[in-house]
Amino acid sequence: MKSTSRDIRLRNCFAVLRHLIADAPTSRQILARETDLSVATVSNLVTDLIELGVVVEVGREDSGGGRPRALLAPHAGGGVMIGVDVAETYVQLEAYDLALTVVDRAEERMEASETSPDQVIGHIAAAMDQVRGRLGDRAILGVGVSLPGQVDVTWGVSGFAPNWDWHDVPFRRLLTERLRLDVPVYLDNPLKTITVGELWFGDGRGVDRLAVLILGTGVGAGLAFGGQLYRGATNSAGEWGHTTIDPAGPQCRCGATGCIEAYVGAPAILRQWDEFGGRAAGSQTEAMAALAAAWEAGEPAAVRTVETVAESLAAGAANLLNLVNPDLVVLDGWVTAALGDALVPEFERRLAAHALEAPLKAARLKRNTQERNMVALGAAALALEGHLNRLNTVGSRSRR
Amino acid sequence: MKSTSRDIRLRNCFAVLRHLIADAPTSRQILARETDLSVATVSNLVTDLIELGVVVEVGREDSGGGRPRALLAPHAGGGVMIGVDVAETYVQLEAYDLALTVVDRAEERMEASETSPDQVIGHIAAAMDQVRGRLGDRAILGVGVSLPGQVDVTWGVSGFAPNWDWHDVPFRRLLTERLRLDVPVYLDNPLKTITVGELWFGDGRGVDRLAVLILGTGVGAGLAFGGQLYRGATNSAGEWGHTTIDPAGPQCRCGATGCIEAYVGAPAILRQWDEFGGRAAGSQTEAMAALAAAWEAGEPAAVRTVETVAESLAAGAANLLNLVNPDLVVLDGWVTAALGDALVPEFERRLAAHALEAPLKAARLKRNTQERNMVALGAAALALEGHLNRLNTVGSRSRR
Repeated sequence: MKSTSRDIRLRNCFAVLRHLIADAPTSRQILARETDLSVATVSNLVTDLIELGVVVEVGREDSGGGRPRALLAPHAGGGVMIGVDVAETYVQLEAYDLALTVVDRAEERMEASETSPDQVIGHIAAAMDQVRGRLGDRAILGVGVSLPGQVDVTWGVSGFAPNWDWHDVPFRRLLTERLRLDVPVYLDNPLKTITVGELWFGDGRGVDRLAVLILGTGVGAGLAFGGQLYRGATNSAGEWGHTTIDPAGPQCRCGATGCIEAYVGAPAILRQWDEFGGRAAGSQTEAMAALAAAWEAGEPAAVRTVETVAESLAAGAANLLNLVNPDLVVLDGWVTAALGDALVPEFERRLAAHALEAPLKAARLKRNTQERNMVALGAAALALEGHLNRLNTVGSRSRR
Repeated sequence: MKSTSRDIRLRNCFAVLRHLIADAPTSRQILARETDLSVATVSNLVTDLIELGVVVEVGREDSGGGRPRALLAPHAGGGVMIGVDVAETYVQLEAYDLALTVVDRAEERMEASETSPDQVIGHIAAAMDQVRGRLGDRAILGVGVSLPGQVDVTWGVSGFAPNWDWHDVPFRRLLTERLRLDVPVYLDNPLKTITVGELWFGDGRGVDRLAVLILGTGVGAGLAFGGQLYRGATNSAGEWGHTTIDPAGPQCRCGATGCIEAYVGAPAILRQWDEFGGRAAGSQTEAMAALAAAWEAGEPAAVRTVETVAESLAAGAANLLNLVNPDLVVLDGWVTAALGDALVPEFERRLAAHALEAPLKAARLKRNTQERNMVALGAAALALEGHLNRLNTVGSRSRR
């Protein structure tokens, strides 16, 4: 409840650095204009960011008669953040510089049978060893890890991790011990990390009320207000995939019936294609690609599947629009990437039948078209946010 | 997007004054403890609140050896705020002192045929004339008005006002001209005013993530984060009543089908009672009282109605819990008051079948049991918040 000038300072710092990452090299004056902050505030924040090793001066530009202005950029040669995307069949680890550019990556395949915390941690550690060997003595500033399921950020995994059935696992402590790294480890689930990724490097930058709809094997949403991830009381906000659109609907893996995920999650989409007479074969991703190709070719079962899924998605998205009234809705997740060309236009066409006029008009709709792994990027951005929190213990110029 | 120290200052000011209204007389030291702010910050805010005429020193208390501490209270003898509850059949106007105590009230009945903005404004003006005559030369600091439908706060009514069919009415300007009052007029709908009322004078005080479910003729929610009303991009956040729980469900007056309001709004409740063999006669409020009495007497149709409505309400509330993960859910509105003894326990019993474990455990559930008109109180509190915004133009001690 308590609001402090530190919160404001950190929020402004995020805004400045996000613009800097997007538009570097740039000047304090332009940053002030873009963030709507005073030049004095920006200058104080930049001084602290330089002191923290996150930003560097990279040159000067003519200011049209006055003193040349310093040009600023993220310190790409400085420390790195690690982002880890843990899914049920793989671990992808990426190292990012302070411009959020990938400088290295490693991937581990996991067998479906490898479901214990110890096995998962083993794969993360193996990927980390590869990357550390190549990074040499470059400092690691923090590690962000995205885990499936509901994640207790201070502790480990709680609630249902879909196929793993972990309960009360002190994952963060176990991982920190195994990595033997003296840097903070941040945990969250993909709904949260993708949303943080959108705030730092996607369409969500500068958006006041952001909703990210994440369509994958599981389905959920990320909400962010004022440029900051909204976690809810116990970090379980965003479980939009487990909101009901029809109590008489199909069984969901969460135990309830008629959840959005039971209609638009990848298994539900492929089940519907099967029921309509399609041929969903191979792995989930192979089958989804086959569905997209069949739709492209005009196969009736595929067309009907896309229309049915779009209708469920529109009903579910309208519920979120009517309740939250966001400025921007971003569609994300691997199902959006695989099936978006078919699904997104059908979805948009159906939204007006479900959403009220005011929130429908207010919300821009975007589909994430980046090739990047937003889960790993967002996990690294979580670590960056944690690192920036040190602004509140170093420097003093912008503390007023 | 921009966050300023003014926002923080206003938010802290709200927190201090809310505690002061609840616990007066009290000291700066106790306020600091209750709000988790420093004594210096509280002292600066109190100095400005005294300068603004909102707070007064009312005495001293022994501090156990040191200097006696000043006791503070809201300036109950100072200016008043007007709160107006405009419904489809009445206008209730209440005048509040700065302790949010009602000092006067007036009520106008409206005929169902009186649906023009001019007629509604006429009734507000008539109620205002009565109260102004009695207030004498006591200053009116602001006027808050709650209107049904979707309200454009800066301008007037937009979207659907249920039975009135107003579009693009510059209500605020028309009302300000008619009242001939040189004070600000604040407009909003009952979802928003009740929620602000809960923040100032209800269970929502001090709660970080608040959801208020408002059950009446219409149905909706109010959300508040960090002690401040969440309006969404275009002030239409909270249209929870128009989220779908079954696309094949009954027609809703918004045009869609299967909205929560089409199950748990007063007309829907009474229709279900009829269908189950009950006798819903008289006005809506009379029929709802008859339903409550029939339930109390164990009438099978009434029992079945309450169970069915509780099931729909649980499905809809679980959707909000899963998406928003609030700390507190308050049930409010006239249907809650009339039918709550029957409905609320049945609702709570069914919630676990729909909500995920984490958000269910996190959310306390409360039923508003106050006798006060929370719509009018909240409208007056909106005017008070507007008045406190002047802190940012007077005084300077707490501006840092």
